[in-house]
Amino acid sequence: MLKLFYASNTCALASHIALREAGADYETKRLDFRSSDQRKPEYLAINPKGRVPALATDQGILTETPAILAFIAQTFPQSRLAPLDDAFAFARAQAFNSYLCATVHVAHAHRLRGYRWVDANDGAAIAAMQKKVPHSVAECFDLIEREMLVGPWVMGDRYTICDPYLFTLANWLEGDGVDPARFPKVLDHRHRMSERPAVRTVLAEELG
Amino acid sequence: MLKLFYASNTCALASHIALREAGADYETKRLDFRSSDQRKPEYLAINPKGRVPALATDQGILTETPAILAFIAQTFPQSRLAPLDDAFAFARAQAFNSYLCATVHVAHAHRLRGYRWVDANDGAAIAAMQKKVPHSVAECFDLIEREMLVGPWVMGDRYTICDPYLFTLANWLEGDGVDPARFPKVLDHRHRMSERPAVRTVLAEELG
Repeated sequence: MLKLFYASNTCALASHIALREAGADYETKRLDFRSSDQRKPEYLAINPKGRVPALATDQGILTETPAILAFIAQTFPQSRLAPLDDAFAFARAQAFNSYLCATVHVAHAHRLRGYRWVDANDGAAIAAMQKKVPHSVAECFDLIEREMLVGPWVMGDRYTICDPYLFTLANWLEGDGVDPARFPKVLDHRHRMSERPAVRTVLAEELG
Repeated sequence: MLKLFYASNTCALASHIALREAGADYETKRLDFRSSDQRKPEYLAINPKGRVPALATDQGILTETPAILAFIAQTFPQSRLAPLDDAFAFARAQAFNSYLCATVHVAHAHRLRGYRWVDANDGAAIAAMQKKVPHSVAECFDLIEREMLVGPWVMGDRYTICDPYLFTLANWLEGDGVDPARFPKVLDHRHRMSERPAVRTVLAEELG
């Protein structure tokens, strides 16, 4: 059986929602970041990066949200979570998820994880990074609003693996000091996502 | 026909090599970053992110290296550049490429692109980021050396879309202040890559 390692309020939410939308048979293991569970030897043996999500499968461990999301779509093709029979459309979905992973999430991470890129004791540099986050995150969402989010779902009429990932990162806007009202399509998407039964169920578990 | 937009000494090299390894019929357009070609209206109409690579196809434009690499592998299945018939193995390849894109490349980018994450005029913060790059990039390659690079190719016996991408980023080690001799498997891989005819041809074009 599939087993998802996650922590609350992390990007693992995207994979968690996708598993449920796919109708997968899976279990979950919650890590507590306040206790630094992700850096304990038993978890590093699963994912040496010390991050979430990680997905244990019968064949081994998978990491990285875009890879896990595509794996879920390919493993449960009947759920139609990605355009698997069209290499170009599949690549468009992957490009969207890659942008979320490598640009949007990274911009966000400079608010609380600045120590990854400067000395943790350099308070001025940490603060300089935090100060830019509202600007850099807003710039990403401006591009998503103008150029990427087709509507009603990210890729258009069909709900895909892009949708839970966008929902996950769009939930961080207020915390990053960005007013979501600047992005009506993103806000509408976030609202529509929050009404899906799978999303309600997963959020109830993660926040419970 | 496929058309790749690239600039020299960028991550677009990975897609360029993959196109050639795939035996694709393609043309290229070189952008000059010193002239800020990537921010000119004619290029922003192709890729509003103002980055490379971008791949123009008959169906539209693709961006983001991991998505382009998977697209090339799927579009030219006879080149066997990815394990397309095994969702788990494909996801492992994608996870590797996602790590390069969202963690390794991002760590590297703090050396010359720090203005993305702090005010461009904050010289102290920019310098603080640059100072950490040798450490953060080396940490990534330590993980690649220990945990990820199976050998002789990234995924094992078969050459895949992971190999040109690792080669591209491994070429930046010296510039980032990291001694590649610390990572014998990576160094061996880089050497083996540099001897491939496709790699020689592409490098001759990009640096010519």
